[in-house]
Amino acid sequence: MSFIKQLQASWQASDSLLCVGLDPDLQRFPASLASGNDNIFSFNRAIIDATHDLVCAYKPQIAYFSALGAERQLEQTIDYIKSSYPHIPVILDAKRGDIGSTATQYAREAFVRYQVDAVTVNPYMGFDSVQPFLDYQDKGVIILCKTSNSGAAQLQELQLQRIGQDSEPVYEYIARLVAKEWNFNHNCLLVMGATWPQQVARVRSIVGDMPFLVPGAGAQGGDIASIVQAGQTVAGHGLVISASRSILYASANDDFAEAARTQAAALKNAINQHRNKHATAL
Amino acid sequence: MSFIKQLQASWQASDSLLCVGLDPDLQRFPASLASGNDNIFSFNRAIIDATHDLVCAYKPQIAYFSALGAERQLEQTIDYIKSSYPHIPVILDAKRGDIGSTATQYAREAFVRYQVDAVTVNPYMGFDSVQPFLDYQDKGVIILCKTSNSGAAQLQELQLQRIGQDSEPVYEYIARLVAKEWNFNHNCLLVMGATWPQQVARVRSIVGDMPFLVPGAGAQGGDIASIVQAGQTVAGHGLVISASRSILYASANDDFAEAARTQAAALKNAINQHRNKHATAL
Repeated sequence: MSFIKQLQASWQASDSLLCVGLDPDLQRFPASLASGNDNIFSFNRAIIDATHDLVCAYKPQIAYFSALGAERQLEQTIDYIKSSYPHIPVILDAKRGDIGSTATQYAREAFVRYQVDAVTVNPYMGFDSVQPFLDYQDKGVIILCKTSNSGAAQLQELQLQRIGQDSEPVYEYIARLVAKEWNFNHNCLLVMGATWPQQVARVRSIVGDMPFLVPGAGAQGGDIASIVQAGQTVAGHGLVISASRSILYASANDDFAEAARTQAAALKNAINQHRNKHATAL
Repeated sequence: MSFIKQLQASWQASDSLLCVGLDPDLQRFPASLASGNDNIFSFNRAIIDATHDLVCAYKPQIAYFSALGAERQLEQTIDYIKSSYPHIPVILDAKRGDIGSTATQYAREAFVRYQVDAVTVNPYMGFDSVQPFLDYQDKGVIILCKTSNSGAAQLQELQLQRIGQDSEPVYEYIARLVAKEWNFNHNCLLVMGATWPQQVARVRSIVGDMPFLVPGAGAQGGDIASIVQAGQTVAGHGLVISASRSILYASANDDFAEAARTQAAALKNAINQHRNKHATAL
C-alpha cells in the first residue's frame, strides 16, 4: 500500500491527526530509566503502549539516537511499532539531503535499514538530491517547506524573483515545485510548521490535498485552532500534527507514560474540535 | 587549536589542498573485501595509509556507513586517522540541519560521539538550526552554499529580491549571511562545488579568506585549473578540494590502495600547478 493510503487509513482508524514524536532525551527521563542497556527502547515502548490508540503516526527523531550511538534502540523502537501496531505508519525524522549517489545511501538508511514508511528530506540541493527517495514509490517523502523554528524566516520567507513570474517566498516556490515536478509518484508530503498558520493556509491553496507534517504543536507553541483551520482538507484531514517534548516529558516521574497519554488525548481532542465534518464523531 | 588553524597547518605540512572523501561502497570494493566483519574499516585503513602524505584532510560520508548499520566502522576509521595521523583534520560529511534542540543532538553526534574536527550542515532552516554547531568554537562548521550537483541550480541559483537591496542568487545570500552573521566564532567554511568555477570566484570575492570545501573534483568532473584559479586565496590556499570515488575505486582489484595513491598524487599535483606562490615548491 502507498504511504498516502496508509496514512488515510490511519487517520480513519484512529480518528486522530496526532503524531507523537519520539525524541528520547536521557536528561528528561524518569530516574528509573536514566541508565541501563535498553532504557531508550523501554521509554519509547511505554510511550507507544500508552498512546497507540490516540495517534495516526509515530515520528522518531534520529538525531536523539545517533548522538548516543543508540541506533540499535532506534531499530528496536521501529520494530516494536511494526510488530505491535502494524497499522500505524512510522516517519523517520532525519531531514537528509545530498548529491544523488549519497542520497541513494540515505534512502537505504531510512527505507531498507530502518524499514520506516516515510522520511523527512531537505530541498536545498534540488531534485537529484530528492529523487532517490521519490523512487521508493510506496514510501512517503516529506519535504521541508516552512519549518516551525524562528530561523525559518531567514531563507524560507525571502522573496524569489523569477523572469516572467510574480515574486513569491522561497517556501511557496518549494511547495509549487514539489506539487508540480517532484510528486510524479504521488508520494510527497510537506513539512509546514505549526507556528505559521497563514503560511499553512497559503500552501494548502497551492498544493491541493497533499498531506502536511506539522511539527511544533506542543513545546514550540503552535496554536491548534488556527493550524487545523488553516491546514485541513475539505474532508477534515490532510494533517499529521506532531508533538514530542510536551507529551514525552509531561511527567519526569514513573507515571510518565500515563501523563503522556493524558497530554496526547487532550491534544487529539483539541485538534478534533476544529476538524471539518467531525461534529458527530466527537 | 581552532579548526581553521588546524587546516592551515595541514595545508602547510602536506603541501596539498586535496581531501580524500571516504564513501565506502561495497559493490565497488575488491572481491577480497566484499564481506567480513571489519571490511569497511580495512578498506578505509588501506586508503588512508596509502594517501596520508598527499592530503590536507579526510572526509568520511556518513550515509555510506549508516545505510549499512556500520557506525562502529565509521568510529574505527576516525579513530585510526586520529591515532595514526593526528595532524590530519577529519571532516564528517553529514549535511545536518534541524530545529535548535535537535541540532544540538546532531552537533553531539559529530563532535562528541565521532570526535571529528568539522561537519557539513544545511542552511535551509536558518540560524537557530546552525548555532548549536557554531557554539563548538574550535570545530569547523561547513555550510552548504553552492553544491556540486546539477539540481543545485533549482533553488541555489534563483534570484532573491529583498527590499532596498540589489537582487542576488540564493547561494550569494547564504555566503553573505555566513560571513556577516554566522561566523562570530571564526569557525565557518562554505561548500562550493567544483563544478561551478564562476560562482566560486564570485563567493571568494564576498567572503575574503573563508575556506571552501570543494567537492566534485573527481567523478563529478569539476575542472581543476578553473576551480583553483577561481577559489584560492592570495596565499594559494583556502580550498579543501575533495574527491572520493575517482580515488577510492581507481582499481577494483587488490591493488586498489596503490591505484588510489597514484590518482591522489596526480590530483594533488594537478591542483598545485595552479596555486599562487607555488612554482618553487614544485
